[in-house]
Amino acid sequence: MAKQTLSLLVDNTAGVLSRISGLFSRRGYNIDSFSAGVTANPKYTRITVVSSGDEDTLEQIEKQLAKLVDVRDIKKLMPGSSVVRELIMVKIRAKDTQRQAVMNVTEIYHGKIVDVTHDSMVIELTGHQEKLDAFIDLLDGYEILELARTGLTGLSRGIDDVKYLD
Amino acid sequence: MAKQTLSLLVDNTAGVLSRISGLFSRRGYNIDSFSAGVTANPKYTRITVVSSGDEDTLEQIEKQLAKLVDVRDIKKLMPGSSVVRELIMVKIRAKDTQRQAVMNVTEIYHGKIVDVTHDSMVIELTGHQEKLDAFIDLLDGYEILELARTGLTGLSRGIDDVKYLD
Repeated sequence: MAKQTLSLLVDNTAGVLSRISGLFSRRGYNIDSFSAGVTANPKYTRITVVSSGDEDTLEQIEKQLAKLVDVRDIKKLMPGSSVVRELIMVKIRAKDTQRQAVMNVTEIYHGKIVDVTHDSMVIELTGHQEKLDAFIDLLDGYEILELARTGLTGLSRGIDDVKYLD
Repeated sequence: MAKQTLSLLVDNTAGVLSRISGLFSRRGYNIDSFSAGVTANPKYTRITVVSSGDEDTLEQIEKQLAKLVDVRDIKKLMPGSSVVRELIMVKIRAKDTQRQAVMNVTEIYHGKIVDVTHDSMVIELTGHQEKLDAFIDLLDGYEILELARTGLTGLSRGIDDVKYLD
Protein backbone atom coordinates (compact mmCIF):
# COMPACT_ATOMS: atom_id res chain seq x y z
CA MET A 1 0.00 0.00 0.00
CA ALA A 2 1.39 3.34 -1.05
CA LYS A 3 0.27 6.75 0.17
CA GLN A 4 -0.30 9.80 -1.95
CA THR A 5 -0.90 13.40 -0.96
CA LEU A 6 -2.68 15.51 -3.54
CA SER A 7 -3.18 19.25 -3.38
CA LEU A 8 -6.19 20.27 -5.43
CA LEU A 9 -7.12 23.80 -6.38
CA VAL A 10 -10.86 23.72 -7.02
CA ASP A 11 -13.66 26.19 -7.65
CA ASN A 12 -15.23 27.32 -4.40
CA THR A 13 -18.74 26.13 -5.21
CA ALA A 14 -21.49 24.58 -3.10
CA GLY A 15 -21.12 20.96 -4.13
CA VAL A 16 -17.42 20.73 -4.81
CA LEU A 17 -16.42 18.93 -1.61
CA SER A 18 -19.00 16.21 -2.10
CA ARG A 19 -18.09 15.80 -5.77
CA ILE A 20 -14.45 15.28 -4.83
CA SER A 21 -15.08 12.97 -1.89
CA GLY A 22 -17.84 11.21 -3.81
CA LEU A 23 -15.40 10.28 -6.56
CA PHE A 24 -13.30 8.50 -3.94
CA SER A 25 -16.17 6.63 -2.30
CA ARG A 26 -17.93 5.59 -5.52
CA ARG A 27 -14.76 3.92 -6.68
CA GLY A 28 -13.91 2.49 -3.28
CA TYR A 29 -10.75 4.57 -2.95
CA ASN A 30 -9.64 5.06 0.63
CA ILE A 31 -9.29 8.59 2.08
CA ASP A 32 -6.84 8.85 4.97
CA SER A 33 -7.31 12.55 5.53
CA PHE A 34 -9.13 15.42 3.90
CA SER A 35 -8.81 19.12 4.58
CA ALA A 36 -10.34 22.03 2.71
CA GLY A 37 -10.31 25.79 3.08
CA VAL A 38 -10.65 28.80 0.80
CA THR A 39 -7.47 30.32 -0.60
CA ALA A 40 -6.41 33.98 -0.62
CA ASN A 41 -8.65 34.27 -3.66
CA PRO A 42 -12.17 33.37 -2.42
CA LYS A 43 -12.99 31.97 -5.87
CA TYR A 44 -10.91 28.91 -5.06
CA THR A 45 -10.73 26.28 -2.36
CA ARG A 46 -7.63 24.23 -1.77
CA ILE A 47 -8.20 20.61 -0.79
CA THR A 48 -5.44 18.39 0.49
CA VAL A 49 -6.34 14.74 0.36
CA VAL A 50 -4.23 11.80 1.46
CA SER A 51 -5.23 8.46 0.02
CA SER A 52 -3.75 4.99 0.09
CA GLY A 53 -3.83 2.10 -2.30
CA ASP A 54 -1.66 0.30 -4.82
CA GLU A 55 0.21 2.33 -7.46
CA ASP A 56 -2.44 1.71 -10.12
CA THR A 57 -5.24 2.89 -7.89
CA LEU A 58 -3.40 6.05 -6.91
CA GLU A 59 -2.72 6.85 -10.56
CA GLN A 60 -6.39 6.28 -11.38
CA ILE A 61 -7.46 8.64 -8.59
CA GLU A 62 -5.29 11.41 -9.98
CA LYS A 63 -6.61 10.91 -13.52
CA GLN A 64 -10.24 10.85 -12.43
CA LEU A 65 -9.83 13.99 -10.33
CA ALA A 66 -8.21 15.79 -13.27
CA LYS A 67 -11.39 15.16 -15.29
CA LEU A 68 -13.65 17.03 -12.88
CA VAL A 69 -14.52 20.51 -14.15
CA ASP A 70 -14.17 21.98 -10.65
CA VAL A 71 -10.54 20.94 -10.45
CA ARG A 72 -8.26 23.74 -11.68
CA ASP A 73 -4.93 22.32 -10.68
CA ILE A 74 -3.57 19.12 -9.14
CA LYS A 75 -0.21 18.77 -7.52
CA LYS A 76 1.27 15.65 -6.03
CA LEU A 77 3.03 16.70 -2.84
CA MET A 78 6.21 14.62 -2.81
CA PRO A 79 8.30 14.26 0.37
CA GLY A 80 11.44 16.01 -0.93
CA SER A 81 9.84 18.85 -2.86
CA SER A 82 7.01 19.88 -0.56
CA VAL A 83 6.29 20.91 3.00
CA VAL A 84 3.33 19.18 4.63
CA ARG A 85 1.99 19.71 8.10
CA GLU A 86 -0.92 18.73 10.27
CA LEU A 87 -2.47 20.20 13.37
CA ILE A 88 -3.79 18.00 16.15
CA MET A 89 -5.58 18.72 19.39
CA VAL A 90 -5.59 16.07 22.10
CA LYS A 91 -7.65 16.05 25.26
CA ILE A 92 -6.25 13.78 27.95
CA ARG A 93 -7.35 12.91 31.45
CA ALA A 94 -4.70 14.33 33.78
CA LYS A 95 -4.87 15.14 37.47
CA ASP A 96 -3.12 18.16 38.99
CA THR A 97 -0.20 15.93 40.01
CA GLN A 98 0.37 14.79 36.42
CA ARG A 99 0.29 18.28 34.93
CA GLN A 100 4.01 19.00 35.13
CA ALA A 101 4.92 15.77 33.33
CA VAL A 102 2.51 16.57 30.50
CA MET A 103 3.86 20.12 30.28
CA ASN A 104 7.39 18.78 29.93
CA VAL A 105 6.55 16.43 27.07
CA THR A 106 4.53 19.16 25.37
CA GLU A 107 7.40 21.63 25.62
CA ILE A 108 9.88 19.18 24.12
CA TYR A 109 7.57 18.79 21.14
CA HIS A 110 6.99 22.55 20.89
CA GLY A 111 3.31 22.01 21.54
CA LYS A 112 0.97 24.31 23.43
CA ILE A 113 -1.37 23.60 26.29
CA VAL A 114 -4.59 25.37 25.40
CA ASP A 115 -6.97 24.22 28.14
CA VAL A 116 -6.57 22.88 31.68
CA THR A 117 -9.07 21.71 34.27
CA HIS A 118 -8.48 19.70 37.45
CA ASP A 119 -9.06 16.51 35.47
CA SER A 120 -8.09 17.28 31.90
CA MET A 121 -5.71 19.07 29.56
CA VAL A 122 -5.96 19.97 25.89
CA ILE A 123 -2.72 20.07 23.92
CA GLU A 124 -2.22 21.63 20.48
CA LEU A 125 0.60 20.37 18.29
CA THR A 126 1.69 20.98 14.70
CA GLY A 127 4.11 18.98 12.60
CA HIS A 128 4.60 16.23 10.09
CA GLN A 129 2.84 12.98 10.76
CA GLU A 130 5.73 11.01 12.27
CA LYS A 131 6.24 13.69 14.90
CA LEU A 132 2.56 13.76 15.81
CA ASP A 133 2.38 9.97 16.01
CA ALA A 134 5.47 9.89 18.22
CA PHE A 135 3.88 12.46 20.52
CA ILE A 136 0.64 10.47 20.78
CA ASP A 137 2.69 7.36 21.57
CA LEU A 138 4.39 9.25 24.39
CA LEU A 139 0.98 9.98 25.89
CA ASP A 140 0.22 6.28 26.28
CA GLY A 141 0.25 6.57 30.07
CA TYR A 142 -2.73 8.92 29.88
CA GLU A 143 -6.25 8.30 28.81
CA ILE A 144 -6.93 10.11 25.55
CA LEU A 145 -10.45 11.45 25.84
CA GLU A 146 -10.68 13.17 22.49
CA LEU A 147 -8.46 13.76 19.53
CA ALA A 148 -9.08 16.08 16.60
CA ARG A 149 -6.72 16.32 13.65
CA THR A 150 -7.01 18.59 10.67
CA GLY A 151 -5.62 16.18 8.16
CA LEU A 152 -2.50 17.08 6.20
CA THR A 153 -2.10 20.31 4.37
CA GLY A 154 0.91 21.41 2.40
CA LEU A 155 2.55 23.31 -0.41
CA SER A 156 5.27 22.51 -2.89
CA ARG A 157 8.65 24.11 -2.22
CA GLY A 158 9.88 26.98 -4.42
CA ILE A 159 7.93 28.66 -7.16
CA ASP A 160 8.67 26.71 -10.34
CA ASP A 161 5.32 25.00 -10.46
CA VAL A 162 3.01 27.80 -9.38
CA LYS A 163 0.38 28.03 -12.09
CA TYR A 164 -2.76 29.49 -10.62
CA LEU A 165 -2.38 32.37 -8.24
CA ASP A 166 -4.56 31.74 -5.19
CA MET B 1 -25.63 35.10 8.32
CA ALA B 2 -24.46 33.13 11.34
CA LYS B 3 -21.57 30.69 11.50
CA GLN B 4 -21.57 27.32 13.18
CA THR B 5 -18.71 24.96 13.93
CA LEU B 6 -19.70 21.33 14.38
CA SER B 7 -17.44 18.56 15.59
CA LEU B 8 -18.69 15.20 14.35
CA LEU B 9 -17.47 11.83 15.50
CA VAL B 10 -18.26 9.44 12.66
CA ASP B 11 -17.50 5.84 11.73
CA ASN B 12 -14.28 5.62 9.75
CA THR B 13 -15.82 4.04 6.65
CA ALA B 14 -15.14 4.45 2.93
CA GLY B 15 -18.06 6.69 2.01
CA VAL B 16 -18.54 8.68 5.17
CA LEU B 17 -16.90 11.91 3.99
CA SER B 18 -19.01 12.06 0.86
CA ARG B 19 -22.20 11.23 2.79
CA ILE B 20 -21.53 14.10 5.17
CA SER B 21 -20.48 16.63 2.54
CA GLY B 22 -23.24 15.38 0.23
CA LEU B 23 -25.86 16.22 2.83
CA PHE B 24 -24.66 19.81 2.77
CA SER B 25 -24.55 20.15 -1.01
CA ARG B 26 -27.87 18.42 -1.71
CA ARG B 27 -29.61 20.86 0.56
CA GLY B 28 -27.60 23.84 -0.65
CA TYR B 29 -25.95 24.40 2.72
CA ASN B 30 -22.72 26.30 2.51
CA ILE B 31 -19.49 24.74 3.83
CA ASP B 32 -16.84 27.27 4.88
CA SER B 33 -14.27 24.72 5.92
CA PHE B 34 -14.04 20.98 6.32
CA SER B 35 -11.34 18.93 7.99
CA ALA B 36 -11.26 15.23 8.73
CA GLY B 37 -8.80 12.82 10.28
CA VAL B 38 -8.94 9.55 12.19
CA THR B 39 -9.02 9.73 15.98
CA ALA B 40 -6.85 7.82 18.47
CA ASN B 41 -9.30 4.98 17.91
CA PRO B 42 -9.01 4.12 14.19
CA LYS B 43 -12.69 3.07 14.18
CA TYR B 44 -13.66 6.73 14.22
CA THR B 45 -12.98 9.84 12.18
CA ARG B 46 -13.50 13.30 13.57
CA ILE B 47 -14.83 15.88 11.13
CA THR B 48 -14.91 19.56 11.92
CA VAL B 49 -17.16 21.48 9.62
CA VAL B 50 -17.85 25.19 9.62
CA SER B 51 -21.02 26.26 7.86
CA SER B 52 -22.87 29.52 7.48
CA GLY B 53 -26.50 30.39 7.01
CA ASP B 54 -29.47 31.77 8.90
CA GLU B 55 -30.35 30.29 12.31
CA ASP B 56 -33.02 27.98 10.86
CA THR B 57 -30.67 26.54 8.28
CA LEU B 58 -27.95 25.89 10.83
CA GLU B 59 -30.42 24.11 13.09
CA GLN B 60 -31.61 22.00 10.15
CA ILE B 61 -28.05 21.01 9.30
CA GLU B 62 -27.47 19.75 12.82
CA LYS B 63 -30.72 17.77 12.84
CA GLN B 64 -30.05 16.20 9.46
CA LEU B 65 -26.52 15.21 10.40
CA ALA B 66 -27.78 13.59 13.62
CA LYS B 67 -29.98 11.30 11.51
CA LEU B 68 -27.06 9.79 9.60
CA VAL B 69 -26.12 6.34 10.92
CA ASP B 70 -22.41 7.09 10.55
CA VAL B 71 -22.64 9.99 12.97
CA ARG B 72 -21.89 8.85 16.52
CA ASP B 73 -21.71 12.19 18.23
CA ILE B 74 -22.23 15.86 17.35
CA LYS B 75 -20.92 18.76 19.34
CA LYS B 76 -21.42 22.40 18.59
CA LEU B 77 -18.12 24.13 19.29
CA MET B 78 -19.11 27.40 20.95
CA PRO B 79 -16.61 30.27 21.31
CA GLY B 80 -16.47 30.31 25.13
CA SER B 81 -16.50 26.59 25.80
CA SER B 82 -14.19 25.27 23.11
CA VAL B 83 -10.74 25.73 21.65
CA VAL B 84 -10.57 25.94 17.88
CA ARG B 85 -7.51 26.34 15.73
CA GLU B 86 -6.48 26.31 12.13
CA LEU B 87 -3.18 25.77 10.37
CA ILE B 88 -2.27 27.75 7.27
CA MET B 89 0.69 27.67 4.93
CA VAL B 90 1.35 30.71 2.73
CA LYS B 91 3.81 30.93 -0.12
CA ILE B 92 4.75 34.49 -1.00
CA ARG B 93 7.03 36.01 -3.57
CA ALA B 94 9.91 37.62 -1.67
CA LYS B 95 13.36 38.62 -2.81
CA ASP B 96 16.42 38.24 -0.59
CA THR B 97 16.15 41.89 0.41
CA GLN B 98 12.61 41.40 1.70
CA ARG B 99 13.40 38.31 3.74
CA GLN B 100 14.18 40.05 7.01
CA ALA B 101 10.91 41.98 6.99
CA VAL B 102 8.94 38.77 6.43
CA MET B 103 10.90 37.02 9.19
CA ASN B 104 10.04 39.82 11.61
CA VAL B 105 6.30 39.67 10.95
CA THR B 106 6.38 35.88 11.15
CA GLU B 107 8.18 35.95 14.48
CA ILE B 108 5.68 38.39 15.99
CA TYR B 109 2.90 36.00 15.01
CA HIS B 110 4.83 32.97 16.32
CA GLY B 111 4.84 31.51 12.84
CA LYS B 112 7.57 29.44 11.25
CA ILE B 113 9.36 29.85 7.95
CA VAL B 114 9.48 26.39 6.44
CA ASP B 115 10.91 27.02 2.99
CA VAL B 116 13.03 29.74 1.40
CA THR B 117 14.32 30.27 -2.11
CA HIS B 118 15.79 33.39 -3.73
CA ASP B 119 12.31 34.36 -4.87
CA SER B 120 9.90 32.81 -2.40
CA MET B 121 9.15 31.92 1.20
CA VAL B 122 6.67 29.50 2.76
CA ILE B 123 5.31 30.42 6.17
CA GLU B 124 3.44 28.11 8.55
CA LEU B 125 1.08 29.62 11.10
CA THR B 126 -1.41 28.23 13.60
CA GLY B 127 -4.15 30.05 15.46
CA HIS B 128 -7.74 31.12 15.57
CA GLN B 129 -9.17 32.63 12.44
CA GLU B 130 -8.91 36.30 13.37
CA LYS B 131 -5.18 35.93 14.00
CA LEU B 132 -4.63 34.16 10.69
CA ASP B 133 -6.66 36.75 8.80
CA ALA B 134 -4.73 39.58 10.45
CA PHE B 135 -1.46 37.92 9.44
CA ILE B 136 -2.58 37.53 5.83
CA ASP B 137 -3.61 41.21 5.82
CA LEU B 138 -0.13 42.14 7.00
CA LEU B 139 1.33 40.35 3.99
CA ASP B 140 -0.55 42.61 1.57
CA GLY B 141 2.70 44.12 0.31
CA TYR B 142 3.74 40.71 -0.99
CA GLU B 143 2.30 38.63 -3.76
CA ILE B 144 0.64 35.55 -2.29
CA LEU B 145 1.47 32.72 -4.67
CA GLU B 146 -0.28 29.91 -2.86
CA LEU B 147 -2.22 29.47 0.33
CA ALA B 148 -3.31 26.21 1.95
CA ARG B 149 -5.44 26.10 5.07
CA THR B 150 -6.58 23.04 6.95
CA GLY B 151 -9.94 24.39 7.95
CA LEU B 152 -10.84 24.69 11.60
CA THR B 153 -10.44 21.89 14.06
CA GLY B 154 -11.23 22.02 17.74
CA LEU B 155 -12.34 20.42 20.96
CA SER B 156 -14.66 21.43 23.74
CA ARG B 157 -13.02 22.58 26.95
CA GLY B 158 -13.07 20.36 30.05
CA ILE B 159 -14.46 16.85 30.23
CA ASP B 160 -18.13 17.21 31.13
CA ASP B 161 -19.40 16.39 27.70
CA VAL B 162 -17.03 13.62 26.65
CA LYS B 163 -19.28 10.75 25.63
CA TYR B 164 -17.42 8.58 23.19
CA LEU B 165 -13.79 7.86 23.85
CA ASP B 166 -11.80 8.41 20.66
